[in-house]
Amino acid sequence: MAEIALYSYFRSSASYRVRIALNLKGLVYDYKAVHLLNNGGEQHAEAYRGLNPGRQVPTLVHGPHVISQSVAILEYLEEVFPEPKLYPRDPVKKAWVRQFCEIINCTQPLQNLSTMQHLTAEMKADEAAKQRWLDHWLGRGFEALEKLAERHAGRCSFGDEVTAADCFLAPQIFSAQRFKVDLAPYPRLRGIHAHLETLEAFRQAHPSRQPDTPVES
Amino acid sequence: MAEIALYSYFRSSASYRVRIALNLKGLVYDYKAVHLLNNGGEQHAEAYRGLNPGRQVPTLVHGPHVISQSVAILEYLEEVFPEPKLYPRDPVKKAWVRQFCEIINCTQPLQNLSTMQHLTAEMKADEAAKQRWLDHWLGRGFEALEKLAERHAGRCSFGDEVTAADCFLAPQIFSAQRFKVDLAPYPRLRGIHAHLETLEAFRQAHPSRQPDTPVES
Repeated sequence: MAEIALYSYFRSSASYRVRIALNLKGLVYDYKAVHLLNNGGEQHAEAYRGLNPGRQVPTLVHGPHVISQSVAILEYLEEVFPEPKLYPRDPVKKAWVRQFCEIINCTQPLQNLSTMQHLTAEMKADEAAKQRWLDHWLGRGFEALEKLAERHAGRCSFGDEVTAADCFLAPQIFSAQRFKVDLAPYPRLRGIHAHLETLEAFRQAHPSRQPDTPVES
Repeated sequence: MAEIALYSYFRSSASYRVRIALNLKGLVYDYKAVHLLNNGGEQHAEAYRGLNPGRQVPTLVHGPHVISQSVAILEYLEEVFPEPKLYPRDPVKKAWVRQFCEIINCTQPLQNLSTMQHLTAEMKADEAAKQRWLDHWLGRGFEALEKLAERHAGRCSFGDEVTAADCFLAPQIFSAQRFKVDLAPYPRLRGIHAHLETLEAFRQAHPSRQPDTPVES
């Protein structure tokens, strides 16, 4: 089997999603740390930009193939390593899982480190303004996800089996906790997250347990 | 065949993507206009939120099935109406098309009407600051897309045949023009766009030609 490498940053939620998916599929991979702050951000280095012109993590390398964007990576893994499956076979249910993932994926750019840095530097946003920003956008996303969970969730975001939706949800809850966004209004999502935290694939992928996790964190 | 309806706003680039895809697949649909500004934003109305808890356009209704998020809708259309295909069959090429789409999809939240409104209201951003914001984030996306186009493009974003990548690119170029973002540094993307503009599926989907397009625009 071709070797797999993942360019990742321990705290990047997009990287965290892919780590969960790789673990769920039982795929061993070489962890390549890309530090988003050191040296002006290692994602901007010439060599890395060749792999990932978007200058973001994660990037998956599978043999000769290089793929970025967490959604594209999860879909690729599903096609190349179909079991255990992360997307339902039924096209409508599959669409609902993708919709759930995209709500999180489309919140992400508003909470990214680079966006928060830009708000500080260019918009002169103070800490209170940035907190309101995070509360607003993450809240908007969670509100929609909670509604979808009311319709579709069991122990997991869709029924009782783990799907790609859960690979997106766990990192987003982690981010919300880190950003001190109130999760009280979303009991279904909190319940799902409590279940996901018990699963080994999720535990191993956690930002607190990566090769580049700082000792103090 | 089950009837199709699309909840859309003429100028929404996510709606525009789906209109292109529906046209490419030769699917007739009922256009349901959702005005993002009138009445405080019709996407916030109770009835619409039942269809789309994310309070965004587009929403696709196919018979009894309701799907939102443009990525999820395009993938669904591909599965249910496989011809003409919008994604390559090869998993690696398919991943590259998805990666291209996601770079645009992840720029979108930073340029959305709701985000720009929030920058004005909450961050007290003036017009110059908002222009720099748009130049920065759209530029970051286009820079990555131009690199990918150098590797993969023919007349279209991936080779000579239209793919989902083109359904994303044309609306993003339209947005950039509207936002006065400089496209001079991206000759490959401009060339692809010039070709796409000649195709009937793209022309029919253009914001200037929708049932809810204001007469003056």
